Amino acid sequence: MSAELQTFLRQASARVEATLNSALAHPTCGADKLFAAMRYAALGPGKRLRPALVYACTQTLQGQQFDPAGCDAAAAALECIHAYSLVHDDLPAMDDDDLRRGRPTCHIEFDEASAILAGDALQTLAFELLLSSDAGAEAKLRLIEELAEAAGGRGMVAGQAIDLGSVGRALGLAELENMHRLKTGALIRASARIGALLAGASETQLSAITRYAEAIGLAFQVQDDILDVTADTATLGKTQGADAALNKPTYVSLLGLDGAREKLDGLHHQAVDALAQLDGDTSLLQQLADYIVQRGH
Amino acid sequence: MSAELQTFLRQASARVEATLNSALAHPTCGADKLFAAMRYAALGPGKRLRPALVYACTQTLQGQQFDPAGCDAAAAALECIHAYSLVHDDLPAMDDDDLRRGRPTCHIEFDEASAILAGDALQTLAFELLLSSDAGAEAKLRLIEELAEAAGGRGMVAGQAIDLGSVGRALGLAELENMHRLKTGALIRASARIGALLAGASETQLSAITRYAEAIGLAFQVQDDILDVTADTATLGKTQGADAALNKPTYVSLLGLDGAREKLDGLHHQAVDALAQLDGDTSLLQQLADYIVQRGH
Repeated sequence: MSAELQTFLRQASARVEATLNSALAHPTCGADKLFAAMRYAALGPGKRLRPALVYACTQTLQGQQFDPAGCDAAAAALECIHAYSLVHDDLPAMDDDDLRRGRPTCHIEFDEASAILAGDALQTLAFELLLSSDAGAEAKLRLIEELAEAAGGRGMVAGQAIDLGSVGRALGLAELENMHRLKTGALIRASARIGALLAGASETQLSAITRYAEAIGLAFQVQDDILDVTADTATLGKTQGADAALNKPTYVSLLGLDGAREKLDGLHHQAVDALAQLDGDTSLLQQLADYIVQRGH
Repeated sequence: MSAELQTFLRQASARVEATLNSALAHPTCGADKLFAAMRYAALGPGKRLRPALVYACTQTLQGQQFDPAGCDAAAAALECIHAYSLVHDDLPAMDDDDLRRGRPTCHIEFDEASAILAGDALQTLAFELLLSSDAGAEAKLRLIEELAEAAGGRGMVAGQAIDLGSVGRALGLAELENMHRLKTGALIRASARIGALLAGASETQLSAITRYAEAIGLAFQVQDDILDVTADTATLGKTQGADAALNKPTYVSLLGLDGAREKLDGLHHQAVDALAQLDGDTSLLQQLADYIVQRGH
């Protein structure tokens, strides 16, 4: 990772953590454990890729005018949705994971009920954060719409449902892609689009940013599948080979390791091509795409 | 129940069901089971008290100008939040209920993972429904704010967390009231306030409606506690004595049956007093308050 990207990601993380810290600072009377579980889930170690995309897309389109403060609420909202989805995905009735980002998962550290409720409340908090952003009324509604579409039963949750239904079943490449497009792609896409909308993007800019995000979103997942078979548990921060053990279809199981790496290269090119449609300095988004393809190596 | 209220509740139910039916009509490709679970949870038998409150408050304040179509999206949004909360509350890790409204609970009819995801997606759908309402931008944001505040970690979810933490613990009356104010009161209050906001309520009207809703929200819970010890399983549509068996504190365990009935009467009076602050015909809201106090008898 370039030093520039490293600095950028560190700053984005720090801003998101400060925003979430303040949103979760004062527990509702009697609900200390709920808030502790929410803080544990939202403020633990993590890549903060979705918030980083918000800041990076706004910065790329705004250039010198960029003020990160205008992105804080939206960036934190995206992290809330992501964190809630991880907490619920890790539950015994779902993926049944004990380890996440190198720490016990939320239901292991607290209990299942607290994990379910913390996830529920983090979803609501995401909408509250968007409400608190300082965009105009129409713009704010647009942001809420982007988030809701990406997070709900026509986005992320549908993807998770399809993923659960696919265990032990022969899934074709098109079905696998549909699942990932919904499960992780929709929120990554929304992060980039929300960043672009905060910058007042034109339709052309929004469309280029969308294509970029769709490519890196899928690339992220292909790389995840590759790392699941090539990296060790310590590097992953979760149990190595977990997907393979569940007999889940992956890009590696469908395309082989070389085929999956080719797929990853193709998506990387698509992302770079999309950036070529944008004027100005797109090096930050370029570096983000490089990082996603190279992480874990 | 008066024939007028019965007709009103039937019409409100029919409108909400039509709205939810249409919102859940076309499952996302591959996510049929998720949508079936969402439909099962949101469209099953139920009192539809929260939607009814939306319609009733708007109608009371608008009088002759009332058009129920303007309430449909918001009424359905409140039912989605309520339905999602029931699905998650019934999970094995939470209240572990097999029966709800006389039917198997969602995780029994489907499975735990589907129930968790259906609840998650119903929460998102609530916000999508509010986005689709035809209020102006500022008004729509106000509705979203009311719902998010009532549903999240400073409202309903906090109440559920406090409730879970109270099993087998000695809870005082003030703590019990705080729990109910959050767990069920917040959403009932939001339903009434959203109805009032849709009618363009003045601050005085909004404040009277809020006091009315706070009183009937708590009355609803007191009556629930009374019915838990006096009604049989068939009438309740859930297991009789379930709360007592879990050693949960209730108004009856803290005040005795007579004390709980006195408390219920007091809240009924508070609701009626609040309505006296409103001009025009408040008989519908009066009848709703009567029904809440008398249901199950």
